[in-house]
Amino acid sequence: MFRDKDQIKQILKDVQANKLSIENAMEDIYDCGYHDIGIAKIDHNRDRRRGFPEVVLAEGKTSEQVVKIMESLAEYHSNILATRAEPETYELVKQIIPEVKYNKLGRVIILERRPLPRKGSVVVVCAGTSDLPVVEEACETALIMGNEVKKLRDVGVAGVHRLLDNLDILHQARVIIVVAGMDGALPSVVAGLVDKPVIAVPTSVGYGASFNGLAPLLTMLNSCAAGIGVVNIDNGFGAAYLANSINKMGI
Amino acid sequence: MFRDKDQIKQILKDVQANKLSIENAMEDIYDCGYHDIGIAKIDHNRDRRRGFPEVVLAEGKTSEQVVKIMESLAEYHSNILATRAEPETYELVKQIIPEVKYNKLGRVIILERRPLPRKGSVVVVCAGTSDLPVVEEACETALIMGNEVKKLRDVGVAGVHRLLDNLDILHQARVIIVVAGMDGALPSVVAGLVDKPVIAVPTSVGYGASFNGLAPLLTMLNSCAAGIGVVNIDNGFGAAYLANSINKMGI
Amino acid sequence: MFRDKDQIKQILKDVQANKLSIENAMEDIYDCGYHDIGIAKIDHNRDRRRGFPEVVLAEGKTSEQVVKIMESLAEYHSNILATRAEPETYELVKQIIPEVKYNKLGRVIILERRPLPRKGSVVVVCAGTSDLPVVEEACETALIMGNEVKKLRDVGVAGVHRLLDNLDILHQARVIIVVAGMDGALPSVVAGLVDKPVIAVPTSVGYGASFNGLAPLLTMLNSCAAGIGVVNIDNGFGAAYLANSINKMGI
Amino acid sequence: MFRDKDQIKQILKDVQANKLSIENAMEDIYDCGYHDIGIAKIDHNRDRRRGFPEVVLAEGKTSEQVVKIMESLAEYHSNILATRAEPETYELVKQIIPEVKYNKLGRVIILERRPLPRKGSVVVVCAGTSDLPVVEEACETALIMGNEVKKLRDVGVAGVHRLLDNLDILHQARVIIVVAGMDGALPSVVAGLVDKPVIAVPTSVGYGASFNGLAPLLTMLNSCAAGIGVVNIDNGFGAAYLANSINKMGI
Amino acid sequence: MFRDKDQIKQILKDVQANKLSIENAMEDIYDCGYHDIGIAKIDHNRDRRRGFPEVVLAEGKTSEQVVKIMESLAEYHSNILATRAEPETYELVKQIIPEVKYNKLGRVIILERRPLPRKGSVVVVCAGTSDLPVVEEACETALIMGNEVKKLRDVGVAGVHRLLDNLDILHQARVIIVVAGMDGALPSVVAGLVDKPVIAVPTSVGYGASFNGLAPLLTMLNSCAAGIGVVNIDNGFGAAYLANSINKMGI
Amino acid sequence: MFRDKDQIKQILKDVQANKLSIENAMEDIYDCGYHDIGIAKIDHNRDRRRGFPEVVLAEGKTSEQVVKIMESLAEYHSNILATRAEPETYELVKQIIPEVKYNKLGRVIILERRPLPRKGSVVVVCAGTSDLPVVEEACETALIMGNEVKKLRDVGVAGVHRLLDNLDILHQARVIIVVAGMDGALPSVVAGLVDKPVIAVPTSVGYGASFNGLAPLLTMLNSCAAGIGVVNIDNGFGAAYLANSINKMGI
Amino acid sequence: MFRDKDQIKQILKDVQANKLSIENAMEDIYDCGYHDIGIAKIDHNRDRRRGFPEVVLAEGKTSEQVVKIMESLAEYHSNILATRAEPETYELVKQIIPEVKYNKLGRVIILERRPLPRKGSVVVVCAGTSDLPVVEEACETALIMGNEVKKLRDVGVAGVHRLLDNLDILHQARVIIVVAGMDGALPSVVAGLVDKPVIAVPTSVGYGASFNGLAPLLTMLNSCAAGIGVVNIDNGFGAAYLANSINKMGI
Amino acid sequence: MFRDKDQIKQILKDVQANKLSIENAMEDIYDCGYHDIGIAKIDHNRDRRRGFPEVVLAEGKTSEQVVKIMESLAEYHSNILATRAEPETYELVKQIIPEVKYNKLGRVIILERRPLPRKGSVVVVCAGTSDLPVVEEACETALIMGNEVKKLRDVGVAGVHRLLDNLDILHQARVIIVVAGMDGALPSVVAGLVDKPVIAVPTSVGYGASFNGLAPLLTMLNSCAAGIGVVNIDNGFGAAYLANSINKMGI
Repeated sequence: MFRDKDQIKQILKDVQANKLSIENAMEDIYDCGYHDIGIAKIDHNRDRRRGFPEVVLAEGKTSEQVVKIMESLAEYHSNILATRAEPETYELVKQIIPEVKYNKLGRVIILERRPLPRKGSVVVVCAGTSDLPVVEEACETALIMGNEVKKLRDVGVAGVHRLLDNLDILHQARVIIVVAGMDGALPSVVAGLVDKPVIAVPTSVGYGASFNGLAPLLTMLNSCAAGIGVVNIDNGFGAAYLANSINKMGI
Repeated sequence: MFRDKDQIKQILKDVQANKLSIENAMEDIYDCGYHDIGIAKIDHNRDRRRGFPEVVLAEGKTSEQVVKIMESLAEYHSNILATRAEPETYELVKQIIPEVKYNKLGRVIILERRPLPRKGSVVVVCAGTSDLPVVEEACETALIMGNEVKKLRDVGVAGVHRLLDNLDILHQARVIIVVAGMDGALPSVVAGLVDKPVIAVPTSVGYGASFNGLAPLLTMLNSCAAGIGVVNIDNGFGAAYLANSINKMGI
Repeated sequence: MFRDKDQIKQILKDVQANKLSIENAMEDIYDCGYHDIGIAKIDHNRDRRRGFPEVVLAEGKTSEQVVKIMESLAEYHSNILATRAEPETYELVKQIIPEVKYNKLGRVIILERRPLPRKGSVVVVCAGTSDLPVVEEACETALIMGNEVKKLRDVGVAGVHRLLDNLDILHQARVIIVVAGMDGALPSVVAGLVDKPVIAVPTSVGYGASFNGLAPLLTMLNSCAAGIGVVNIDNGFGAAYLANSINKMGI
Repeated sequence: MFRDKDQIKQILKDVQANKLSIENAMEDIYDCGYHDIGIAKIDHNRDRRRGFPEVVLAEGKTSEQVVKIMESLAEYHSNILATRAEPETYELVKQIIPEVKYNKLGRVIILERRPLPRKGSVVVVCAGTSDLPVVEEACETALIMGNEVKKLRDVGVAGVHRLLDNLDILHQARVIIVVAGMDGALPSVVAGLVDKPVIAVPTSVGYGASFNGLAPLLTMLNSCAAGIGVVNIDNGFGAAYLANSINKMGI
Repeated sequence: MFRDKDQIKQILKDVQANKLSIENAMEDIYDCGYHDIGIAKIDHNRDRRRGFPEVVLAEGKTSEQVVKIMESLAEYHSNILATRAEPETYELVKQIIPEVKYNKLGRVIILERRPLPRKGSVVVVCAGTSDLPVVEEACETALIMGNEVKKLRDVGVAGVHRLLDNLDILHQARVIIVVAGMDGALPSVVAGLVDKPVIAVPTSVGYGASFNGLAPLLTMLNSCAAGIGVVNIDNGFGAAYLANSINKMGI
Repeated sequence: MFRDKDQIKQILKDVQANKLSIENAMEDIYDCGYHDIGIAKIDHNRDRRRGFPEVVLAEGKTSEQVVKIMESLAEYHSNILATRAEPETYELVKQIIPEVKYNKLGRVIILERRPLPRKGSVVVVCAGTSDLPVVEEACETALIMGNEVKKLRDVGVAGVHRLLDNLDILHQARVIIVVAGMDGALPSVVAGLVDKPVIAVPTSVGYGASFNGLAPLLTMLNSCAAGIGVVNIDNGFGAAYLANSINKMGI
Repeated sequence: MFRDKDQIKQILKDVQANKLSIENAMEDIYDCGYHDIGIAKIDHNRDRRRGFPEVVLAEGKTSEQVVKIMESLAEYHSNILATRAEPETYELVKQIIPEVKYNKLGRVIILERRPLPRKGSVVVVCAGTSDLPVVEEACETALIMGNEVKKLRDVGVAGVHRLLDNLDILHQARVIIVVAGMDGALPSVVAGLVDKPVIAVPTSVGYGASFNGLAPLLTMLNSCAAGIGVVNIDNGFGAAYLANSINKMGI
Repeated sequence: MFRDKDQIKQILKDVQANKLSIENAMEDIYDCGYHDIGIAKIDHNRDRRRGFPEVVLAEGKTSEQVVKIMESLAEYHSNILATRAEPETYELVKQIIPEVKYNKLGRVIILERRPLPRKGSVVVVCAGTSDLPVVEEACETALIMGNEVKKLRDVGVAGVHRLLDNLDILHQARVIIVVAGMDGALPSVVAGLVDKPVIAVPTSVGYGASFNGLAPLLTMLNSCAAGIGVVNIDNGFGAAYLANSINKMGI
């Protein structure tokens, strides 16, 4: 799909030279790269384009839909992830694909038949215990994509020495994911300490004027420390996805 | 005003004993404690009740109204403050009350004929240079109310060592006012370091998703460090007012 | 942690004089002050820095996590608090630490093995019956921290005489916590009556345009009575924490 | 317009009896009641339906449009009002209708050729000096509609005794309009004191978390004192309009 | 409570003349007018001040609290109302006060031992079937307060002829309550048709961009028809309360 | 209803000529066109005015109310729709009107006794699997109103080739409905590709900063591709209703 | 661009048959259809795809940028529109393209060298005089695109008879654009009266709780009359663009 | 600053061995790394920690403050940037530091005495002409930090072929910055096409329901294409800062 100019030129030349039939040329140009299973178009080409197969966001889908989509993906891919999956969904998927695992805290279903080598280093830092589900989602995503992952838990700014005592871990990272709810202040402090790409994940942890994560989201977008990329509230998956594409640079 | 039960009882006894005429008793009960100048009721009793004369919020009033109100207050009080006053207003006030001074950065008009002794210690910490107008408003307010004031400027969390290097100043404070815009993360860090009452002032410094100070306001209300009292956006005056009432305790 | 300059100087002198081994000096400088239990870093030093052990916010944590954290804290401290704890959590904690108590209305688990002497006076005022859960959270927090506490319930501004009749209680306070939902008008009236530090707690009591406590939160931040410190919606704990640090001044 | 059933029946009978021509019957049914001046349909019937001619909201219209509309209205009516009019607009209108007056603080242009008798009593209460423009708009509207009007200025809840000292004025009212910005707490207190219809007008007076009047608007909608009708922010005109329709009942 | 000047003068005179003991004078001045039952201060004087006993908002209170408060009120009053009460609460109240009735759709518990004569006319208009719970709450409130009540249901502006066909009912009203969710457009149309005080109640009926009633609330506050008083979302009670105080004028 | 001028003129002429009795003339003018069933006014005329009988929005109504309304409608109409109906409601309706069908995913109850011929072509495009409930609601609505319907599922912009590969389907449409949650970007891309009326439906699919559909709603309103009409969040019915009225033009 | 499958097939056949050189085939496939002028890519193909040349949104661009873009467009097209253009911009454009006209109220620059025949009928209805700028923008857009346009001004719902008296104009329309600020109620009433596609344009006309057009926007999205397509606040252009694409159907 | 454990150990050893005086050890530990100029603490160490000197955000500071800060920075650094600087500020700075340059569109003051070699490739993509100021800010920032920069302008999704025609430029990038206002849909499309880290910058370009950039901000946070890092509205600087730290990895 989206053949670039050189590829199109070559196809045309092959057609002109009768090396390629019009039917095959059409197919080559219109290689749609996905499999239509009715409820969804499974985008099997995405890993070629984006480095990893389509990850299934289970939330908002019925368990039956998740099973059907994962089943289709499992025919083409060794490693698959479904995020925000309830235990019931996992049980159903397990009946079809017995080798799947489940991270209960992170609500992630994992099929990892051929683990990728763990490279580089992604450090996932979090402010408090309640942020752990998002941390787990981020870690599982980063791991299955082939990143070495370290966790630095419960180092919120209310006791900044807990963070300073672990500066060495931050210094060893290639990319840092910072997960924080409530005031969302942690990414600002981390980004002020080390010269690494920082990805900030606001969480819905908190109450009242947190407004379900709006407060830390705004905090992170307004960080006085430059160079922080922010993802959606509770989006551990997205943070890890971005961390992966950064971490793989130059490796 | 609002005589308590013992006072009322005494008045009644005096009336019963004919020590107090009904007219005087009426006056005593209905001592309204303010002077009606048409556009406003000047609350001359407020300093008895609240420790300081009514401070004039110039914003939203015409310069003429501010002049008229300050003139009335100046008859009863030695020390007066007008906040958020434009230079033009200051010039007009100065014509009537020549001894007033003006803090241009803080936009405060100050009449301080009998300075109160500076007691205790209020430390005003701020994140960045752009927060200085709010800092100045807070400092002038705290000073005229009789507090010793120290400033700790430009110690935002993007370079947390600037704050840590000045821990001794924080330790000497009785009350700490923390002024911050953008991510508003500074109060969380300060409150995590020292065991003093912390008053947080969000500022409208910033742009975009700061939404004119909403971002730091929410940050401070959701601080993961307990025990922070938050005031309105840019409300340096209110922070100093509260700091004063705390600082004066037990002195 | 965060040794100040004099402390560092002394450590260096002791090292120079060989009174202190490098290992001990390292420990002294790097006394991390917390105990890592995997899911959390228990901040045992916090009471030294902030006057009280880490309070556990149970909301957002699993019961198992709360139990594990309280168990760890109970090894180091006599008195512990867990707020926003469900009865189920309490039952689990009770199995491990039998002497804990539970305030059902305030949803607070209390371990108070060596009660501190009750000092000063914190008055907790509330507007209506529905605000009582927040009142209870505030009172339990203030009590275990060693404050004398009085309650003034159901004195909302719709019947302002109920407040005026109890002025004497307000006058005896050192600090006043005002809890109000709906219009959140009570702190303005209280702060206009007495010259004490006022801490305002908006509650989520109300419906419709209350927007889960946004309405009283904004009311309190915009109070026309100066000197009110506002905490997060329903944050009785935070209000009491701040009240404690104020009340203990000069005692 | 909108003939009710009895009127339609009578028209039909008259047509049947040939007392009324079809043309006149059509006109009678289709008496449109307004005069189309191109840029606007002047609703001359509105005073029959609603008790007063269409009031011109000058804001959002060009001065030329306001002049043209007022000129058209002045042909049919003795008394006209234009609200939120800038001085420039007033000057232009004055050239066409020399007898108009201008309330500068309230930004109201008034044409009152045959003053209505002032009846009943509408009391307009306001919290602070900065609320006066809205008070003036309300008062001028109520006056030209034929209401007796009293003002009670600067009685905000930060000094509730100023209000209590004037209870007698409140007791004499038939309807009370309460104008307040910032915390917007005044209507709750007023409605708790007297058993009269209370109309609350939030104003945009304030800054920061007032969000241009959102704070007092929410306060008033959530008032813990029942029976308050709220109008739009700064809408002194609307409050007076409603007050007029209430005040005229049973007179 | 809140004796006015003449009353205070008389009390003083009686004391001076020894007609009144100081104890009785104190009581007279400090007649608190409420009964403290621990969880609440029952405001028995409110009907003197505001025309009706305190209505209990059951929402946000436990059933036990509601029972306790209603029991206390029932000792002093013939007629009581509890709004937003669940069936369970009703069952509990019924065990203590057997003569209470329950309007299930309106979620209102009614104790009406001595019905007041129904006077005047309050018309409650609503846009759709889903608005009926709010309509019922308003009607029950208006009825028990002694108002004649008529309902005009399901006349939303999507079929404006349904409203126009019932103009005669609107013309007979003294006060009109208009209840509408979704677009909230009905009050504008009603207020444009008849010259009566209109009270608008936005409801949370709708979905998506209704944002739980925010949409109709804003619609009503911005009505292009002047003179509409708006109450909180779903606040049928408040609308009826205001309607009652208007309807009783001049009767 | 709303007879236009020619119709009124004819009625008057007939009355004048005694061809029409006054009673019949009244009826003709006041043909209310709806049937009052107590809880609702069934608007049987709406299909004459708007091309289709009143559709029942089941959400917010009790099942009993839905049954009663559908029963009344079924007496007058062959084809009826109830949207957002729970399975329980369907079961109850089925007992009264056995020929109804139920689309479970779309939560739509369908009574289609005389199917209209399917004309023109409405294409419903959606971004992801989770948007299917809204798609189904739109499709059922369009079908019963007599439109030919095609679906193009799971063609979100994260893999834009899936959309480009199906350009031919878009080109065959007369009207295009685009359903998308999360970023809501799909309508902009579709409208940039084809010159057809595009109706955009934001969905509540997503989490965090989607704010229940606010994000895609704003995206669609701000589309950089001109000429997109937006309906309420999740409002598949409304989109189909508008599509129907467009599709039927010129057919 | 975006050749469909048949076109690609033909190109391939022509290449195979040597009727088409590879260079020309490349050009044919990669006919980019726009002209890059540095600051912008002028999309000259858009009228082929979308029926009209790119319209210039002047707001947010410097006058110089607008001139440069219009100059480039004028080389390829007879008719061009620039919306939200200030008079200064118009003056500059006029110097380069002397035949442009300017609608001052609507802030639209018009180049119409070969007027299209005016077909069908688009009716633009507006609530008040202040909405006229948006009306003018819509009308100019519809006109230059070749639509017959009628205006129905100042028929807001506060005087619904003004609308009912003009039902005939509504009945003659093929598409109706309804422009309204403040309460935004007009589209609901219009859509309830006539069975035509209705496009609603909220305007920023209003103040206070209008929140710059948010109020009418929400009203329109929540309309109880089905089948209304809503565009952005003040977006007269977008409404006309959509109206044009609907109006041209079946003509 | 923030010496890690090995550094501290070495210092202690040197002290013990008397190789290092206590004074020098103190200095070594407490090397504060900034220069206090009164209004600000110039953080000269930041480039060591974060790779580049402190960039000055001119907005919110007076021109005098900007001059003073840049002057101080220029003593220590070769290359400095000031963003959001008005022309007046530039003129003042130029008087002190004559070699500064000014990018007027991007409002950036540039001091680049020793240009860094341009490495890697950062591509800045933007949706429309109005987004260019943010593009310029991003480009200048990326350039002075030593990145090769390419721009791809005016490729918004309303004409997606303009983007597809330039896929080769995207494929050559190491990092992609996507700048978009209005619907903010461009980053989703870009991230779906290429497997590179994408940084999204929402802009305040737009009107009405754009709410000053809130709409594209939410769009980007909810992107259905994974792995996008979002920065604050209009924050071209921040995007480039993050892009720089990513681009430099592995080079």
